[in-house]
Amino acid sequence: MIEKHQGAVKQITSHSNPIVKEIKGLVAQRKHRNQSGLFVAEGLKLATDALEAGWNVRYLAIGPEARNNPAAQKAAANAKARGALILEVSTAVMSAMTRKDNPQTVVGVYEQKILSAQDIDPTSGVLWVALDRVRDPGNLGTIIRTVDAVGGSGVVLVGDCTDPFAVEAVRATMGSLFHVPLAKMTKEEFKTFAAKWPGTVAATHLKGAVDYRTPDYSEPVLLVMGNEQKGLEDDMAAACSTLIRIPQTGQADSLNLAVATGVALYEIRRNHLEL
Amino acid sequence: MIEKHQGAVKQITSHSNPIVKEIKGLVAQRKHRNQSGLFVAEGLKLATDALEAGWNVRYLAIGPEARNNPAAQKAAANAKARGALILEVSTAVMSAMTRKDNPQTVVGVYEQKILSAQDIDPTSGVLWVALDRVRDPGNLGTIIRTVDAVGGSGVVLVGDCTDPFAVEAVRATMGSLFHVPLAKMTKEEFKTFAAKWPGTVAATHLKGAVDYRTPDYSEPVLLVMGNEQKGLEDDMAAACSTLIRIPQTGQADSLNLAVATGVALYEIRRNHLEL
Repeated sequence: MIEKHQGAVKQITSHSNPIVKEIKGLVAQRKHRNQSGLFVAEGLKLATDALEAGWNVRYLAIGPEARNNPAAQKAAANAKARGALILEVSTAVMSAMTRKDNPQTVVGVYEQKILSAQDIDPTSGVLWVALDRVRDPGNLGTIIRTVDAVGGSGVVLVGDCTDPFAVEAVRATMGSLFHVPLAKMTKEEFKTFAAKWPGTVAATHLKGAVDYRTPDYSEPVLLVMGNEQKGLEDDMAAACSTLIRIPQTGQADSLNLAVATGVALYEIRRNHLEL
Repeated sequence: MIEKHQGAVKQITSHSNPIVKEIKGLVAQRKHRNQSGLFVAEGLKLATDALEAGWNVRYLAIGPEARNNPAAQKAAANAKARGALILEVSTAVMSAMTRKDNPQTVVGVYEQKILSAQDIDPTSGVLWVALDRVRDPGNLGTIIRTVDAVGGSGVVLVGDCTDPFAVEAVRATMGSLFHVPLAKMTKEEFKTFAAKWPGTVAATHLKGAVDYRTPDYSEPVLLVMGNEQKGLEDDMAAACSTLIRIPQTGQADSLNLAVATGVALYEIRRNHLEL
């Protein structure tokens, strides 16, 4: 159990320090992340993104190389002012915490934020993405990054999805995790949510009757993407107003989920994005 | 050193069998793949793709669960007829070879195929992709898969790229590795190659003056993409006829390389792809 500390600095060199053990647990196991409501993001860029975006930070661990880096010092001062415990750790401890041979020099522990259906006002944005049982953390993180890049409003995780707060997912967002709201729904909640959606609810689907280039996507758009292996379930597809297909030639059976989502998002925003 | 065997079947239960060790080496180290010119592809689907596409197969290892599977039996018969040694292995041996707790039930060892600049006839296809120092095997594999999906002719690896025959890269191609020709060039070779290219040589670049939606891409198109962290080097960019930008809004600094390549490829093929 991690206790909340108030803006102190602590030196840690022992691998058996309870905070080191707790951070290892957050890196390694979803169970620990769920129980504590915390997660780990590696790197100075992500720490800066998290602090600028106002996320609650519990710990900020700083390795020896980062202690003279002005950006890292600024992040530490900022985190400390907001009640975080600053951990000055050795490279060996950083390695142990993150389970990496070449660890980042800054590692933060933050409080998770996740919305539910009733928190979302569809009319406040132009585009949301819903993912049905997404399995791969790299795909999920990459999709969050792409949603950020096209000015989307958020990502809805439907059903049994991979953990967006897993280290690999967080890493793949490249910091966009801290800018793109996430929501979680059961399939039944999603169906109700989609039924009330004021704009186009478009899903890519093998049975999609409409070329993805042809619909008149009406804002706000809700783009629904299925599982990597199994695609979208029939009852999920039935909850969508428009089933689209992205054409494929050659021998490939399908596109990678993050690529397909990117292609669809750029098509939906095609007449709205400006350089 | 792997010897070429002629269409025999061999039972292996020992982890210290030299063939098991050699396959472990091919999975683990680029050095072993380079020296032998061989690589490993996991899974029955990839074995079927490789055999249908006429790739030379050296070994096909079949786990206990696959021995009664008609598709696996067909692949084994096909591979044996073409001179491969069929390995009937235990699940433990399969696990050891692939370094996975839940290994695939079929694992193949194939001869690498890689072209050089003079092997490529630009006029024989509509679209090639060139990757400058791509680092991530998942990105490379995903790009090969997307090139296949848009009917592209091949992928050129420029400079110090990640190994396309690494297990993670092969896996991410989802079998498209066996359908999409690969070529390898130094940066200098690439510059000569690009200078002679008969159509548009388009590169995504931060300094790209042209919105990716506006060029009149003239076939054959050569799409050039830079390194994940560093983008495209200036002298590489200078070798391209058109520098394009994909617009981004929000807080994201950039797109994932495979997503950016997918968005650009679908735009280039936008008026040519049919459902």
